[in-house]
Amino acid sequence: MSKKLTKRSEDYSKWYNELVVRADLAENSGVRGCMVIKPYGYAIWEKMQAELDRMFKETGHENAYFPLFVPKSLFEAEEKNAEGFAKECAIVTHYRLKNDPDKEGKLMVDPEAKLEEELIVRPTSEAIIWNTYKNWIQSYRDLPIKINQWANVVRWEMRTRLFLRTAEFLWQEGHTAHATKDEAVEEAEQMMDVYAEFAERFMAVPVIKGLKTESERFAGAVETYCIEALMQDGKALQAGTSHFLGQNFAKAFDVKYAGKDGKQDYVWATSWGVSTRLMGALIMTHSDDNGLVLPPKLAPIQVVIVPIYKGDDQLDAISEKVQPLIKELRTRGISVKFDDRDTHKPGWKFNEYELKGVPVRLAVGKRDIENNTFEVARRDTLEKEVVPADEVVAKIEGLLEDIQDTIFNKALDYRKDHITEVNTFDEFKEIIDGKGGFVAAHWDGTAETEEKIKELTKATIRCIPIDFDEEPGTCVYSGNPSKGRALFAKAY
Amino acid sequence: MSKKLTKRSEDYSKWYNELVVRADLAENSGVRGCMVIKPYGYAIWEKMQAELDRMFKETGHENAYFPLFVPKSLFEAEEKNAEGFAKECAIVTHYRLKNDPDKEGKLMVDPEAKLEEELIVRPTSEAIIWNTYKNWIQSYRDLPIKINQWANVVRWEMRTRLFLRTAEFLWQEGHTAHATKDEAVEEAEQMMDVYAEFAERFMAVPVIKGLKTESERFAGAVETYCIEALMQDGKALQAGTSHFLGQNFAKAFDVKYAGKDGKQDYVWATSWGVSTRLMGALIMTHSDDNGLVLPPKLAPIQVVIVPIYKGDDQLDAISEKVQPLIKELRTRGISVKFDDRDTHKPGWKFNEYELKGVPVRLAVGKRDIENNTFEVARRDTLEKEVVPADEVVAKIEGLLEDIQDTIFNKALDYRKDHITEVNTFDEFKEIIDGKGGFVAAHWDGTAETEEKIKELTKATIRCIPIDFDEEPGTCVYSGNPSKGRALFAKAY
Ligand SMILES: [Zn+2]
Ligand SMILES: [Zn+2]
Repeated sequence: MSKKLTKRSEDYSKWYNELVVRADLAENSGVRGCMVIKPYGYAIWEKMQAELDRMFKETGHENAYFPLFVPKSLFEAEEKNAEGFAKECAIVTHYRLKNDPDKEGKLMVDPEAKLEEELIVRPTSEAIIWNTYKNWIQSYRDLPIKINQWANVVRWEMRTRLFLRTAEFLWQEGHTAHATKDEAVEEAEQMMDVYAEFAERFMAVPVIKGLKTESERFAGAVETYCIEALMQDGKALQAGTSHFLGQNFAKAFDVKYAGKDGKQDYVWATSWGVSTRLMGALIMTHSDDNGLVLPPKLAPIQVVIVPIYKGDDQLDAISEKVQPLIKELRTRGISVKFDDRDTHKPGWKFNEYELKGVPVRLAVGKRDIENNTFEVARRDTLEKEVVPADEVVAKIEGLLEDIQDTIFNKALDYRKDHITEVNTFDEFKEIIDGKGGFVAAHWDGTAETEEKIKELTKATIRCIPIDFDEEPGTCVYSGNPSKGRALFAKAY
Repeated sequence: MSKKLTKRSEDYSKWYNELVVRADLAENSGVRGCMVIKPYGYAIWEKMQAELDRMFKETGHENAYFPLFVPKSLFEAEEKNAEGFAKECAIVTHYRLKNDPDKEGKLMVDPEAKLEEELIVRPTSEAIIWNTYKNWIQSYRDLPIKINQWANVVRWEMRTRLFLRTAEFLWQEGHTAHATKDEAVEEAEQMMDVYAEFAERFMAVPVIKGLKTESERFAGAVETYCIEALMQDGKALQAGTSHFLGQNFAKAFDVKYAGKDGKQDYVWATSWGVSTRLMGALIMTHSDDNGLVLPPKLAPIQVVIVPIYKGDDQLDAISEKVQPLIKELRTRGISVKFDDRDTHKPGWKFNEYELKGVPVRLAVGKRDIENNTFEVARRDTLEKEVVPADEVVAKIEGLLEDIQDTIFNKALDYRKDHITEVNTFDEFKEIIDGKGGFVAAHWDGTAETEEKIKELTKATIRCIPIDFDEEPGTCVYSGNPSKGRALFAKAY
């Protein structure tokens, strides 16, 4: 634990990989591309889940659970969706192993236990869910259906990175069915807003809401809404997407409803999801060269108390002093850890909790006992101060709020500084290769130009921001007319 | 919804299948043996999860997440475990689909995308987890590790039934690592106790704690502890198991630790799990010919209020009257639904909430407004009474407690009536084929006798109860000496 992290300025990517492992968040497993989410990382994910789940339920959604497997015939029903995922899916073909006659104690796939129809491990669940909704929907009275599922999904990515891109990941996927187009579009927009609110209020990660271009859209969607965040290395990260699916899945699975007038029509759909990728966004937005910086609202441990003592008598005195404080903090819903282990020195513990991003650290030594004080340190700025015991609860409550705001504003300032309007392709390349961040540039709206810019600069259109002004102009690449600026960036 | 359920006395199995579907708990999916857990069923499962998760955390466990896939070489490392699951596992062999050249718009498995090593969809996670623990454990200071995971698992069962036996199911699996045998045994026993407490206090399902015989043990375990419940048709249901795994997995994966004295030794292990099978136990223990009966502690809706009115004026008056009551109940943590839909008649709603097992139903009509009363009905006994408005909150709180106790005691009485001591094999067969329930009989301790009894009667040894007296006797089947009585039953 004594070895320092690689600095962000030296190698951002290496810093990230080291941090995820050293802060005990996750590690690579013995299974290609799959990760183990360790207890400390999982505790953060659980806090995210709890808030998101509450927000979904407040907006009228219910949880349910659908099968892990998608039979091939259902998988291929919505053609674009199938095409989008066919190249990266795990396929179950057999249902039994048998003893390998050639290798004592080894097993082999039993060729006689071949499935008649192959099963795809879900990369997303539209197919299996719309095949189910078909039986649930007859009339307008059965609509809307607003269901969410917490699940694992598998996409056979060739290059993987902990949390950011893994073969298996955890996520939630909402799948809703509506009688009208307007209602479905509203739902898709609402969920983008829910994601943005979650990212900003809980993760303290500022995001831009926008629409994807056709080439970046979800396979099978009519429109993909997204929230885009900006990391400290100037690269963008798509943090959540919400899709208006039109009637594509209803048509693929023949899901019609009878309206009040008895007329049959196809059902309108949305789907929306966020995943353990959010962990990557959280880590990369706030953390520094000393380790994680966690927003207090998602920190598994909000306050750690480290005693500084010689001998059992001093430790007893300190323990006695902190017990009522611990109790008081817990009553106020603040999570506290008192680390009185005698196997590690205070300095080691300080480093450890810095590495793990615990927002507030209290230290108590002999002099604090005499003076009735605590030393209080905040993780984000690393500032320390000595606080009288009777003011410490208020101090901590204030700090937790202040840290949440401070790290959000810091990230917001960084992003504001890293949205650059450019009007020529030279400027475009200069910013993308130098300063980084988002580049707001006129684009002629064609997939050809988008593709060409990507080839030349590695930058993609992250989104057409929802709240950008209509501003006619000239495409930075083609010189053709443009209706407004799109946001380009290199991205995770 | 008007059609009556099949009666339990007519066809218990049919009654169960109908109830699960008609109460909107779950249904079969388009994927062989896999179920869709519908929102109402999932809401009950979420309540179970919340309580269990709290109990696991209170006993010092943390959550984490391990990969869905187990490479074949890890799967086969612990031989008995591998043997136990080899015949019913889903196997991923390929990672890509391609367009089928012979069928326009169809996909086929790409033969060029064959995995070098097959991946087994986890039927349980000992192998993948112990392969991970190997890297986490060096010395006694790294122990104990006490981790739980909430996950889906797949066992390719040939005959499936909603909740009771499905190819994919949801569960939690705890996996702990310890320095000593005693500590591991204590952990396994503790988790059996946690499961028993959960079953009895929250599910209101009385259970018998015991040990499995060798032939019923978990594949790879040294000892399997279990809790066994009794259903209304006299069949037993294994509701949870906790395994002392000895050093079997540590040896298979070479996981050693250095003790305080520096000596290397293999690590001791436990694993324990409960699954969505608990939903089956819950449904079958309490429900009746009118539908579900849910224990108030796990009911998604604890109180439903049905207005009985003609015209908007009466509905307005009723709404006005019930709003403060709803608020008061919610403040007390009681979940309430006010069903003011005008699309269904009160009688239909009464049946619907009976079918769904809502513990307490309030009805409010014109006369109740005039008299300032509510009609209060309890689901378990179907008793109704008219209660003055100012007593209704206390009445409801009392009823929720009383229903929880009453259904537990009813189930307990049934079980007490259905444990029969027998001393001859004729008596044994007579009870098993007639009255049913548990048969407490002397057994000579051999797998041969156990197997023979199973062949002749379909009854298996559910467990050797933890708290049974040592009582020497003669085996009912073989006449050989026995150390005590085992509990036999037909089982789910
Ligand atoms: Zn965007
Ligand atoms: Zn048992």
